[in-house]
Amino acid sequence: MKNMESLINHIKTQGFIFQGSEIYGGLANSWDYGPLGSELKQKVKELWWNYFIRHNHLNVGLDSSILMNTQVWKNSGHLGNFSDPLIDCKKCKSRFRADKLIEDKFPEVNAGKMSNSDIEDYINKNKIVCPKCGGLDYTTIRNFELMFKTNQGVLQDESSVVYLRPETAQGIFINFKNVQRSTRKKIPFGIGQIGKSFRNEITPGNFIFRTREFEQMELEFFFDPKDKTNWFEYWIKEVDFFLSEVLGISKNNYFKREHSKEELAHYSAATTDFEYNFLFGRGELWGVAHRGNFDLTAHQSGSGQDLTYLDPTTNEKIVPHVIEPSVGLERLILAILTESYCEEEVENGTRVVLKLPKKIAPYQIAVLPLQKQQNQAATEIYNDLLKNYDVIYDETGNIGKRYRRQDAIGTPICITYDFDSENDKCVTVRNRDTMEQKRVLISELEDFIKKDLI
Amino acid sequence: MKNMESLINHIKTQGFIFQGSEIYGGLANSWDYGPLGSELKQKVKELWWNYFIRHNHLNVGLDSSILMNTQVWKNSGHLGNFSDPLIDCKKCKSRFRADKLIEDKFPEVNAGKMSNSDIEDYINKNKIVCPKCGGLDYTTIRNFELMFKTNQGVLQDESSVVYLRPETAQGIFINFKNVQRSTRKKIPFGIGQIGKSFRNEITPGNFIFRTREFEQMELEFFFDPKDKTNWFEYWIKEVDFFLSEVLGISKNNYFKREHSKEELAHYSAATTDFEYNFLFGRGELWGVAHRGNFDLTAHQSGSGQDLTYLDPTTNEKIVPHVIEPSVGLERLILAILTESYCEEEVENGTRVVLKLPKKIAPYQIAVLPLQKQQNQAATEIYNDLLKNYDVIYDETGNIGKRYRRQDAIGTPICITYDFDSENDKCVTVRNRDTMEQKRVLISELEDFIKKDLI
Repeated sequence: MKNMESLINHIKTQGFIFQGSEIYGGLANSWDYGPLGSELKQKVKELWWNYFIRHNHLNVGLDSSILMNTQVWKNSGHLGNFSDPLIDCKKCKSRFRADKLIEDKFPEVNAGKMSNSDIEDYINKNKIVCPKCGGLDYTTIRNFELMFKTNQGVLQDESSVVYLRPETAQGIFINFKNVQRSTRKKIPFGIGQIGKSFRNEITPGNFIFRTREFEQMELEFFFDPKDKTNWFEYWIKEVDFFLSEVLGISKNNYFKREHSKEELAHYSAATTDFEYNFLFGRGELWGVAHRGNFDLTAHQSGSGQDLTYLDPTTNEKIVPHVIEPSVGLERLILAILTESYCEEEVENGTRVVLKLPKKIAPYQIAVLPLQKQQNQAATEIYNDLLKNYDVIYDETGNIGKRYRRQDAIGTPICITYDFDSENDKCVTVRNRDTMEQKRVLISELEDFIKKDLI
Repeated sequence: MKNMESLINHIKTQGFIFQGSEIYGGLANSWDYGPLGSELKQKVKELWWNYFIRHNHLNVGLDSSILMNTQVWKNSGHLGNFSDPLIDCKKCKSRFRADKLIEDKFPEVNAGKMSNSDIEDYINKNKIVCPKCGGLDYTTIRNFELMFKTNQGVLQDESSVVYLRPETAQGIFINFKNVQRSTRKKIPFGIGQIGKSFRNEITPGNFIFRTREFEQMELEFFFDPKDKTNWFEYWIKEVDFFLSEVLGISKNNYFKREHSKEELAHYSAATTDFEYNFLFGRGELWGVAHRGNFDLTAHQSGSGQDLTYLDPTTNEKIVPHVIEPSVGLERLILAILTESYCEEEVENGTRVVLKLPKKIAPYQIAVLPLQKQQNQAATEIYNDLLKNYDVIYDETGNIGKRYRRQDAIGTPICITYDFDSENDKCVTVRNRDTMEQKRVLISELEDFIKKDLI
């Protein structure tokens, strides 16, 4: 049955993802990507980079540091505000996120927007007891900083504190002028980057959906608010296209959700989340936020540097507005794996097949010699294809078992070198999804594959 | 003149690399990669991944976490041993790396191998005075931990300490069994990964050569010590080939240096460094280390897990030996930029040209309309090429200036749409290195480019 448990089990045993530091009993909520998972991640990153940066006439790329000057976080509003409200039950000493305590009991309430004292009042008035022991005697709320803190340099004191970035976006904002000046780009244009971010979440979970260490693919698109183009809608459409047409995610399985006025950050004019039907429930996949000119204005006043853009036609200085399409790579991978995971009844039982889009399957082709004696001929085919394709070679087990193995990791094409191959100079080419088999001349194999993999 | 200063100046002004957190006065020794630098990095990573992992029959990929269980560092030997010996001058309060104090005065001495008390004795016996004030009154040596330390989870105490990984290698070793089991690979095989590492260096420097935050491309190649193939030599040859043939670095500019017995880590049977002639002097670029079975043995005894490999033919359990080719991406980028930077006397002055290999140039093609009125026709060419190539569009300044600009960022091909183009359906194609110009039919442009870019 397709559920969270069977999916995770499949992903782990096939070698897509392992528990982080597993031989040492793990490290809570950390995951390592094996040969298949790292290749899948790599390909999704390449697709994003090609689509949004490399082959996009509007955008350029960036790769900024994880460690930044603490002033960045002071002025972005993260330092001091980017925290979770923690509360302890005095009776049983359990610790909770106070806002979640309310929302778990009253899902219609948006406690994330309340002040700490409002949260405390609400809990007491509505008698929200400790979920562990049933008591109603809590400590006051303490704010728990979500940024990982470390020290750089020889001194280990306040002066040497640096934070691991909780998002890649700020690295883009602080480099806006540098990029604009060196590329002489005119707005509208965007700056995008892929990179690790870190959040010391109190309640990470749902496998790789929410992790403390994660990778973001973020675009900050700068434009003149007087521009008549609706760039917010433009990027929503681009994200929609990328999800459905580039990654092949069914439009039945994801949804656009506009944030209500209440949910919006104070600086945001509008935000639309793309939510995916994960197996644990609906979850945010890709956010498209209209951030106004909040960030550039904050860094301009914080740094004293001129971050305005000089319009070459009007000679007017403006602080550009920003649309931010931002996605977490790991949860996108989880959506892709969820989407592609199928259990199918076949003649001799059930097969689990990952119907991954051909361009992101870890391996595009498997080469299988029917018998070990055919290794030499099959290896030649393997080595030839390996120059241009991602190919796996598998020589162990009966052929049915090997087909299942390739189904399980999503390999679109299996090539079998069999007893007739030496005579008829053909191999059997099997399609992952239809399971159809065709005889193809070895001399025409590369042409056949080229067409099939498009 | 080509020197460190002119090179850095060029790289910064052209938008390859900016000072990290520049608008806030920077963060010591951090660098952000602009549109050109991030694209260059991206392409070099893709080349490495394709050559060593994706299209290599011996190896598979991995992507392990930056944050790992602290036991990893305890057993790898990093915790406690991976530190610098610091010493303070009592008179002027200056702080030094004690081993460097000796080596700066006596370059023939390998102080890195001495114990702290031996270093103290040596300094006093040889009267190595404080380079700042000339005093000879030091504190005792303190070991300064090179790993960045942070806390994960709600508690901020010793139990929640985690370190930022100082190398990607250990993430590979702890996953050896997971990878081997799930891929059913037989040794010899390798596991490689690309990722950020962090070292709280006391004396980082030389631009991007030594930074606290850096990216590694590491391969750990596992083999049976009874194997007759000399895998150490094999990987030295592969690195050599990759540097000279794939990245086009002249063999005149890099050198192989075998570590002497004295320099070798206690567990290493042999290590060969590839050193590059940087403009500040010779520096380590790529290390190939024979690590024996030190790491797997250490993690096996530390974790109590069986990390042996069962030889399917002999049914013997062995702990595989390891060859580790390891390179820092940033210093490889610095070598590539150093290698490609040329100042050339031309008719009307000097041109600075980056003779980057075509496959790693940030832009492969520039499309230049001679006049703004030709924008529409030129944009069509640009958009067509952009589907398959990395293309920049530049419409400002006179054409000579624009050629220089593309030379400066290493674009191999310039395509100029000029006054005759509308009539003869041709464009001028200019070669970066020879500066030769050819008229090419627009209808034949893509074919021409395809051949030229090989």
